Amino acid sequence: MSRADQPLAYARTQGAHFVEELKEFIRFPSVSARPEHGGELRKCAAWLAAHLARVGLERATVIPTPGHPLVYAEWLQARDAPTVLIYGHYDVQPAEPLDQWRSPPFEPVELRDELHGRGASDDKGQMFAHIKAIESCLRTSGRLPVNVRCLFEGEEEIGSLNFAPFLAKNRMALAADVVVVSDSATRGKDRPAITYGMRGALNLELRVKSGKADLHDGLFGGSVHNPLQGLCDIISRLQTSNGVIKVPGFYDRVREITADERAYMARQGLTDEEIMTAAGITRSWGDPGYTLYERTTIRPALSVSGIAGGYQGPGPKSIIPAEAVAKLNFRLVAEQQPREIYQLVRDHVARLTPATLQSRTTLQLAADPVTVPRRHPFIRAAALACHKAFGATPAFVRSGGTNPAVAAFQRILGLPTALVGFGLPDDRIHAPNEKFHLPNFHKGIAFGIRFLHELGGSGSVMSHDYR
Amino acid sequence: MSRADQPLAYARTQGAHFVEELKEFIRFPSVSARPEHGGELRKCAAWLAAHLARVGLERATVIPTPGHPLVYAEWLQARDAPTVLIYGHYDVQPAEPLDQWRSPPFEPVELRDELHGRGASDDKGQMFAHIKAIESCLRTSGRLPVNVRCLFEGEEEIGSLNFAPFLAKNRMALAADVVVVSDSATRGKDRPAITYGMRGALNLELRVKSGKADLHDGLFGGSVHNPLQGLCDIISRLQTSNGVIKVPGFYDRVREITADERAYMARQGLTDEEIMTAAGITRSWGDPGYTLYERTTIRPALSVSGIAGGYQGPGPKSIIPAEAVAKLNFRLVAEQQPREIYQLVRDHVARLTPATLQSRTTLQLAADPVTVPRRHPFIRAAALACHKAFGATPAFVRSGGTNPAVAAFQRILGLPTALVGFGLPDDRIHAPNEKFHLPNFHKGIAFGIRFLHELGGSGSVMSHDYR
Repeated sequence: MSRADQPLAYARTQGAHFVEELKEFIRFPSVSARPEHGGELRKCAAWLAAHLARVGLERATVIPTPGHPLVYAEWLQARDAPTVLIYGHYDVQPAEPLDQWRSPPFEPVELRDELHGRGASDDKGQMFAHIKAIESCLRTSGRLPVNVRCLFEGEEEIGSLNFAPFLAKNRMALAADVVVVSDSATRGKDRPAITYGMRGALNLELRVKSGKADLHDGLFGGSVHNPLQGLCDIISRLQTSNGVIKVPGFYDRVREITADERAYMARQGLTDEEIMTAAGITRSWGDPGYTLYERTTIRPALSVSGIAGGYQGPGPKSIIPAEAVAKLNFRLVAEQQPREIYQLVRDHVARLTPATLQSRTTLQLAADPVTVPRRHPFIRAAALACHKAFGATPAFVRSGGTNPAVAAFQRILGLPTALVGFGLPDDRIHAPNEKFHLPNFHKGIAFGIRFLHELGGSGSVMSHDYR
Repeated sequence: MSRADQPLAYARTQGAHFVEELKEFIRFPSVSARPEHGGELRKCAAWLAAHLARVGLERATVIPTPGHPLVYAEWLQARDAPTVLIYGHYDVQPAEPLDQWRSPPFEPVELRDELHGRGASDDKGQMFAHIKAIESCLRTSGRLPVNVRCLFEGEEEIGSLNFAPFLAKNRMALAADVVVVSDSATRGKDRPAITYGMRGALNLELRVKSGKADLHDGLFGGSVHNPLQGLCDIISRLQTSNGVIKVPGFYDRVREITADERAYMARQGLTDEEIMTAAGITRSWGDPGYTLYERTTIRPALSVSGIAGGYQGPGPKSIIPAEAVAKLNFRLVAEQQPREIYQLVRDHVARLTPATLQSRTTLQLAADPVTVPRRHPFIRAAALACHKAFGATPAFVRSGGTNPAVAAFQRILGLPTALVGFGLPDDRIHAPNEKFHLPNFHKGIAFGIRFLHELGGSGSVMSHDYR
């Protein structure tokens, strides 16, 4: 009999009640992108802090930021045991388009074994599993096997702009050994996954201008440089037709991956077919020297996420627009540093800008790539807990996405993060009819209980090799 | 004493009354771009037809089209005299932004010697001068020195899509010798101008697609071809950095202009400085082998008038858009044929489109270049009338703009058009606070009277050389 048995039994008997509490959490329309929802985010944060206090955590607090508040709580009575920092986010994506929801987004309902509602999977349901794991331990044994700090933010969906500065200011007060984050998906039902790499991000806005006002293209076409043409010319020179980025120095800190690691990725990761099916395309694109899984995880990429300029209505209009703007998303890997890359891109864009136009590059988001050592003892503890909770060995996968908060944990606190997702790949996060697979909610709670106990030394980490 | 003296005297005594009538005309908010204004355009057309009948023209009719109606009237009793077709348009540009008008756009007011209101210059005031010239002749001598057909349209500001088909169907019924159009500007006060060349136009929409839906650029960036990137790559390959168009065959029908003509243009046309000042730029662009006046009149040009794709709001967004669209405006010269150029561009875009993307090119507007022989007797008659009415020799200038109706007169009826503008360069057409210089309204009426008499043979065309 393990010390985790009692909390696991508690979680089983309380399962239905936990789902009712999760519904309460989802009812707050905590849409961080809408300034007019600020009050709802503060209400949600207050509810969350009160809930953390009720389950037995200490110093539960709402912490104001220049944006939406953070929520913090801790339990630090496990002398000589490690400290785990649990991160999640209580803010959600906008629910629009509302007419495509089968049930109202902020009135959660159970349909068979799914809980429908905005935030059910991303991230309220997943972070709530950890809170319920803590409750299950505290209510049965009166203590936790390790020290715990909970830190939940309200700006993940809008770029976590206030999160890294908060970490930097509170480095000492947040001392910990490992971070655990559940804000991702498994590879399918009963196919758990641990993410061990994420790409960094550098998001820029590029603005190109000519004169002060739009001009008539009949009267001036041929004599005035068109900012939209200039923008296209610059963008076209930023990468080859295969997506190899042509900014000098861009690849200097991109290490070639070892043959061993590539072989590991080929065994564990997504196939070309899986990626093409998920993307809904019949012809892939990119550097032919790499598989699609490699192109989207260990190789950098540049995506133009938006261009606006001139007339966009129906029919023609006779103008040379005065200005054009593009949004450029770079995904970064290995040792690439967003701010260094920003300088390289900015200098290169300046070189590419002809004297007949002006350009301006603005930084909008910068986040480091994240790498988690798979052999780190805490990560192995997570893998073991995952195996026990889900009944299957987790796949170790890389993600092409970015998590600025996880990047900040790595860069500012020097902490590894166990990225263990409870979502399913088809949870429709960011889309209408978002849902959470409730068996994964309960498995997530079991994972949380197991993980705390593995970290507390009652598990058997050393006997497994999850390489 | 000339036969024009009595009508000219009548016009002088009736001047103030004519301005009141013009105000009545301007009060109709005949904005062709707004489908909800259809009723206003029909009311305006009915008022116009009634007015043409009242001044003594015959068969005054409102002619329905698939869009806004045409208005026609004639006077054909001048046996053995030529027939002049007077063209104009009673539709106007939208008045927005309304908050920038100092007086309501459809409540015309006189401020010193200016009449303010939407359409005052473009084109109600200018076309109305011809109607008042006809009235001045008919009320004094009971007849006109030549045959006259008036044809006024209600869709000039939206591309005259129904005009060329109407001409093609009514070729015989519209038989004439020359067209006169006043829908342009002089070179300044007391500096009259006759336009003898206009560029053609080919407006296209270029749409580039990848998959069915927007994708997350973190998860898929590097493996899926981005339509915005593809669009930029295609556009960047359509012309050189100096605006030389790289579509094969594009220049086949562009004749090099003679040294004589270039010298004439240098004497009569706008200087580089005048064009740069008008454009509000400090550095010009384009083919260094030509002056700015040449680049904007006798050379073709490609302007990207709009691009839309992906996210355009504030801050970053993590997407690869599914689709991107650009509007391409080609200006054509000499013997270039819009539909032939359309084929060339379409084929070239198809060649430039990689297999990883789909592209589609749609035709939105096509109009031929227009050239008027400066030595044509009717054009010389217009120049003489212009000299008499304005007290100065008119400059013969080229315009970089396009007039689909004038192109249709040339192509379908084979008629030369005398393009004699009464506006001033700063009339703010298409912008808030449009105004018409009232001395030019009265000079325009005098021009109309003089022109009819010159064409009727009572002038002295042969003694002048307006080369």
